[in-house]
Amino acid sequence: MAHVYDRIALIGLGLIASSMAHAIRKFDLAGSIAGYARSSETRETVREIGFCDEVCETAPEVVRGADLVVLCTPVGVMGDVVDEIGPCLEPGATLSEVGSVKMAVIEAVVPRLPSGVHFVPTHPVAGTEMSGPSSGFAELFEGRWCLFTPLPGTSPEAVERLRSLWRRMGALIDDMDPERHDMVLAVTSHVPHLIAYTMVGVADDLRRVSNAEVVQYSAAGFRDFTRIAASDPTMWRDVFMNNQKATLEILGRFSEELSVLQRAIRGGDGELLHEHFSRTRSIRRGIIEAGQDTGLPDFGRSHGIED
Amino acid sequence: MAHVYDRIALIGLGLIASSMAHAIRKFDLAGSIAGYARSSETRETVREIGFCDEVCETAPEVVRGADLVVLCTPVGVMGDVVDEIGPCLEPGATLSEVGSVKMAVIEAVVPRLPSGVHFVPTHPVAGTEMSGPSSGFAELFEGRWCLFTPLPGTSPEAVERLRSLWRRMGALIDDMDPERHDMVLAVTSHVPHLIAYTMVGVADDLRRVSNAEVVQYSAAGFRDFTRIAASDPTMWRDVFMNNQKATLEILGRFSEELSVLQRAIRGGDGELLHEHFSRTRSIRRGIIEAGQDTGLPDFGRSHGIED
Repeated sequence: MAHVYDRIALIGLGLIASSMAHAIRKFDLAGSIAGYARSSETRETVREIGFCDEVCETAPEVVRGADLVVLCTPVGVMGDVVDEIGPCLEPGATLSEVGSVKMAVIEAVVPRLPSGVHFVPTHPVAGTEMSGPSSGFAELFEGRWCLFTPLPGTSPEAVERLRSLWRRMGALIDDMDPERHDMVLAVTSHVPHLIAYTMVGVADDLRRVSNAEVVQYSAAGFRDFTRIAASDPTMWRDVFMNNQKATLEILGRFSEELSVLQRAIRGGDGELLHEHFSRTRSIRRGIIEAGQDTGLPDFGRSHGIED
Repeated sequence: MAHVYDRIALIGLGLIASSMAHAIRKFDLAGSIAGYARSSETRETVREIGFCDEVCETAPEVVRGADLVVLCTPVGVMGDVVDEIGPCLEPGATLSEVGSVKMAVIEAVVPRLPSGVHFVPTHPVAGTEMSGPSSGFAELFEGRWCLFTPLPGTSPEAVERLRSLWRRMGALIDDMDPERHDMVLAVTSHVPHLIAYTMVGVADDLRRVSNAEVVQYSAAGFRDFTRIAASDPTMWRDVFMNNQKATLEILGRFSEELSVLQRAIRGGDGELLHEHFSRTRSIRRGIIEAGQDTGLPDFGRSHGIED
């Protein structure tokens, strides 16, 4: 099959960009890949790993000659990056981004967009708790959703071409309204991360329970929380700074619900707890049936029992 | 090596008991295994799987002739079970239990204990989100901690013999004060479970975010929460009813900490968030170094990338 793009430029070379580069090469989806990262250390690592054909020293440089430019930086700096690269974007090129929030990114990018450039926001709902250029792998997007939040008036051909790239990297594609995207992701990802960060912080603060004990006896539960809470701090700071409204709404509901369970514990209302715990089981079944996790039990180190 | 016990009786035949039975057989640690579960359906399943040499119809029956009896029921019924089996326990036998809380269990069991029986409370800190007699496997305890909270005055020989059983099932052994146990486990396990249950409940309630979407786009974060929240409702109800004090203390601290982060989001204090998120990363490193989880990234279905 023919390449989807001639030259793809990746800006910000962490988990998502490096995984894209590996997948683009594996499935032969572009003539060449150019990469730029702000940190010289990251650029050096990428040169060593070699998943880009060219690693550039500046952002304007990397977008020259690219028919697809993908912003893979934390969402908080995307507006600034567009200011920087805008004059060098090729006419007719597609500018995309892979941020975890959509409304704030669209508001930041659209006013800075040069005419003649197609802007297509996307969100590959895939990741691990790892970050940085060494953490990527070609299979990250396989069977995962890549959500598109296309804007009215965008060239359907440009959107379809980008869909084709993601499809050929193994992703499932769906379209979503940007505002709805931010609410759904607040529930499924942003607030769960904040809660995990909070709980791990509580454990860290507790002088009565030394770290050594917390770490040593971290059963399932806390162990899963620490995995979530090990994610990239800059990325997550920017997520919360840029999805404030939906995050705060869901946090409010969470606190209400937690108060109900807390009161049930204090009052010894076992029936309420049992009813609540039974209800949550069915959502888990739905996720396994939807293919977004394995039904295999997780008991820590060896992840996945083979029979 | 010689058997550790002649006959081990297991009461309550779920994940822990079935895993113990598989491990006891695998490592040849007892002459025979007898089992009892309150539900006739469970007893029938256990007969089919065959991990007990004998499945009894009553609790008093199963303890006859056993030199080790292990209570593997939800913690809330352990007192009642001891009332039932007390008169039939063999003099010199050891009674143990594997509950997730210790203070309440000790308070319930000790006054009902016939003289001449050694009571040794334990807590194997191991599990999966699965439950029931079909969920057990011999490797569940390998490299996991089994916490002993022995009471003053208990025969050291009886305690050492039980330690030997757990060691030979692959567990690491540590002693802990019962009150401290309940506080450490509130942090590492009980409150994280309650929070996961709460978050999954919030998602379920939200009419604006249909279940289908939540399920379909469940990225890491929510996906881990649903796994935790799929655990056995009866077991967890009993944990919270019986570790009220420590759970409520930790929940209080959690709510305080969450309010701080919530206020930082509302006020746009990215620095506070970044500092907090950076701190939690180091705990994760500690857990990996302590061997309680794999350092491999978790990206859902295929759990563990073999590269």
